[in-house]
Amino acid sequence: MSVYERLHTLAISLPEATIPAAAYVPFVRSGRQVFVSGHIAKKDGKPWRGQLGVDMTTEQGAAAARSIAIDLVGTLQAATGDLEKVAHIVKLMVLVNSAPTYTEQHLVANGASQLLQEIFGERGAHARSAFGATQLPRGACVEIELIAELVDAA
Amino acid sequence: MSVYERLHTLAISLPEATIPAAAYVPFVRSGRQVFVSGHIAKKDGKPWRGQLGVDMTTEQGAAAARSIAIDLVGTLQAATGDLEKVAHIVKLMVLVNSAPTYTEQHLVANGASQLLQEIFGERGAHARSAFGATQLPRGACVEIELIAELVDAA
Amino acid sequence: MSVYERLHTLAISLPEATIPAAAYVPFVRSGRQVFVSGHIAKKDGKPWRGQLGVDMTTEQGAAAARSIAIDLVGTLQAATGDLEKVAHIVKLMVLVNSAPTYTEQHLVANGASQLLQEIFGERGAHARSAFGATQLPRGACVEIELIAELVDAA
Repeated sequence: MSVYERLHTLAISLPEATIPAAAYVPFVRSGRQVFVSGHIAKKDGKPWRGQLGVDMTTEQGAAAARSIAIDLVGTLQAATGDLEKVAHIVKLMVLVNSAPTYTEQHLVANGASQLLQEIFGERGAHARSAFGATQLPRGACVEIELIAELVDAA
Repeated sequence: MSVYERLHTLAISLPEATIPAAAYVPFVRSGRQVFVSGHIAKKDGKPWRGQLGVDMTTEQGAAAARSIAIDLVGTLQAATGDLEKVAHIVKLMVLVNSAPTYTEQHLVANGASQLLQEIFGERGAHARSAFGATQLPRGACVEIELIAELVDAA
Repeated sequence: MSVYERLHTLAISLPEATIPAAAYVPFVRSGRQVFVSGHIAKKDGKPWRGQLGVDMTTEQGAAAARSIAIDLVGTLQAATGDLEKVAHIVKLMVLVNSAPTYTEQHLVANGASQLLQEIFGERGAHARSAFGATQLPRGACVEIELIAELVDAA
């Protein structure tokens, strides 16, 4: 099944590439790798504010991480023009806006990891780090950065 | 305009490569990429201590980020011997020492992002993540790590 | 001296590659680079819980970082089949579970950095970032992510 067939099966329509809130770009290619900027969670086009362990549950955090994964794939679409050119998702860095007592950052991150595997199949299996940030830009609950490898070099 | 002409126009003189405070090196080359260690903000040669949302404003944080960018370019000079060999700034990771309520990490990071674009022009446009750290080594207010791509491989 | 002779001299026996607690894989190869997932500190097979500046000293944190470095080398063994194929340790990202007042993340990280240099010699000299996380998955005291470069491409 192609990546686009999987997206269709999952009833996911990709957004336009997220426009960064600041003086940088959504992605940069370096050889066969694409470095995608940290994307914050959004709801109705606005930052999805909240903090795990304060006013959000792990399930809500995982849903936010899943929504970011969709935005990241939208940015990969803009970077590649064709998602079949993604050879592999290499790595995620998952930042979870956390109370000092909250210890389930890995379960929040699973919301993104699982979706990437559903969309990309074996090519979606990635390395990952997840940890608690004391706060995130615009008060967002989750932020995720991604590195992917493409089939051919820039 | 060359990178050095831009530095001259900006009245920026590069420092010697920062000597790490610990058991590691300021940069490592891997193929065409250079991975530059996290550099903390310094003032008068000492760690620039402070926390955003406690005893520093966003403007002061952005000034600290800008000063780190100068140090990072100094390290790139040491890594390359010639900044014209920098094909692209690939990615920044910007750690902002933040109170739990501070949400303008992206504006702090802009201090570094904007300067890199002024120095490197189009080659300075980079991917980026910025987020709040609960503390940083030596109490520094900001720390930035950088990946650059060079014109030719090691 | 080979890497294995150094490990023998250091009386270090490598663990099996750590199985991630979640929906991702322990490492991904991309060209000549290996991206190793964030590994949390473990003690007796369980998460090594604690927070620097609250219930752990810098020395204990450095010991935890050293133990993670051993686990990371175990994962590199699984990734390469032969540690002599490691051309260079490229970069570490060291996350230290920190109280808001704790500022010795770099000294904690040295526990890992020094061991990697003892094991890999010159090939172990790496770039690094270390900073304070407000919490880590499962309450672990330290988490470390690693990028290495191999002698030949995937």
